[in-house]
Amino acid sequence: MQTGFDETASLDLARRLARAAWSAIQPHFRASVATENKGGRGASYDPVTIADKAAEQAIRDILSAERPDDGIDGEEFGRHEGPSGWTWLIDPIDGTRAFIAGLPVWTTLIALVDPEGNPVLGMIDQPFLGERYVGSPAGTFLETATTRTQLRVSECNDLRDAIIATTDPFIMTPAEQGAWTHLRHTARVSRYGLDAYAYARLASGSVDLVCETGLQAHDVAALIPVVRGAGGIARDWRGNEAKLGSQIACAASEPLFEQALISLRRSAL
Amino acid sequence: MQTGFDETASLDLARRLARAAWSAIQPHFRASVATENKGGRGASYDPVTIADKAAEQAIRDILSAERPDDGIDGEEFGRHEGPSGWTWLIDPIDGTRAFIAGLPVWTTLIALVDPEGNPVLGMIDQPFLGERYVGSPAGTFLETATTRTQLRVSECNDLRDAIIATTDPFIMTPAEQGAWTHLRHTARVSRYGLDAYAYARLASGSVDLVCETGLQAHDVAALIPVVRGAGGIARDWRGNEAKLGSQIACAASEPLFEQALISLRRSAL
Repeated sequence: MQTGFDETASLDLARRLARAAWSAIQPHFRASVATENKGGRGASYDPVTIADKAAEQAIRDILSAERPDDGIDGEEFGRHEGPSGWTWLIDPIDGTRAFIAGLPVWTTLIALVDPEGNPVLGMIDQPFLGERYVGSPAGTFLETATTRTQLRVSECNDLRDAIIATTDPFIMTPAEQGAWTHLRHTARVSRYGLDAYAYARLASGSVDLVCETGLQAHDVAALIPVVRGAGGIARDWRGNEAKLGSQIACAASEPLFEQALISLRRSAL
Repeated sequence: MQTGFDETASLDLARRLARAAWSAIQPHFRASVATENKGGRGASYDPVTIADKAAEQAIRDILSAERPDDGIDGEEFGRHEGPSGWTWLIDPIDGTRAFIAGLPVWTTLIALVDPEGNPVLGMIDQPFLGERYVGSPAGTFLETATTRTQLRVSECNDLRDAIIATTDPFIMTPAEQGAWTHLRHTARVSRYGLDAYAYARLASGSVDLVCETGLQAHDVAALIPVVRGAGGIARDWRGNEAKLGSQIACAASEPLFEQALISLRRSAL
């Protein structure tokens, strides 16, 4: 039974999981054109669902063989516990709407969560771009085919200068929309539709604040180590340290977070 | 003086313009992190403005040397007429908000417009992705470093199945927002923040409908040949063939366009 956290071995395993996922996904990304004549959209060929399931199965096969004592919680095939108390959280394709629109901002999310529920390793992989954002206690790095660069959040400390992002303002509750509207009118630039890729850009210093709602554990777990490893803040909308809950706000700096919290707190769950 | 349209020569020139633009832009894309300590955001270093101007100047230098009789209309340095009556329309960085957020969906737009004001050649270049979408009377092609693939819009003919896009629903007038809200509630998936890249994906078959407002001639000119060359429809919100005006709606099919027009027409300029 695994009793500790071997960061190097776990990171290496996570990279292999990401590669296996991409092998399963690649044939289906932007595949709709070639298959359009076989029945059109809405017909039996559903590329993103096929790719999602195939990628998660590929990841589960490797974990079952190499980490039989760890638990797995994946978006497609649910959760099973393992005696080690450690759990791998998997979202094979985060950003399915970007995926079906052919946009290279969907990602594969892989996280390792300790027995206390803290994510200690997070990976946001965008294989079409060849960008892998890896966060751990050692820091956050952008890995490409040829480079490995340590990342650091921006120094933005004023909401009026900030580039902010959320995935879809129209899926928020009215109270949450109120908070977002306040942020949007104050911030410099707002971006939508990025899903986890927004947090990758936050870690890289080109987005300053990301606020989201309606998330599940496998959406969130990978983000937290990536953001924190780059020096960013990951909390909930009450201002508490982020757990694997549905509302999350990540910021480049404490002053920026505090300014955002003024709006967010009123619609915190 | 140039009297006709040499498609091969003009396309080759347009490709060289795009490469010159990327040479000017590349040092500034995602450059904010490295320069953050030199004064932070809002200080004197403004990557997107510097890149925008440098790219347009590079393009103008080539056109002045090789096509002295053609006019040029660029976003940064304005319009000058040429005796040939043909005009190159240039937007060096379309999608500046995506650019500053480090997102690879900004594009360089290059179009050649005939003396009657019809764009006959359009290029949507995304050099970070290595994707160049080229539309002309010969069709629309996606050119990468190693491939050249003819593109065809999707066969989507029902708004309820459609993937739709607009750049920013919050910059629309209230009447336009009403039209968009109707479309959004009917369509399958909505995407935001793509600027011209949405039309590239429309030509590729993974987006079905794009509706935008507030555009200028150099935003629009390149899109029309790309969309039409792939078999798509490019019109204004009244349903007339698209000119270089501010409202545009592009669709994969006639039935889809007709369904969108029901909403759009009420807020047509």
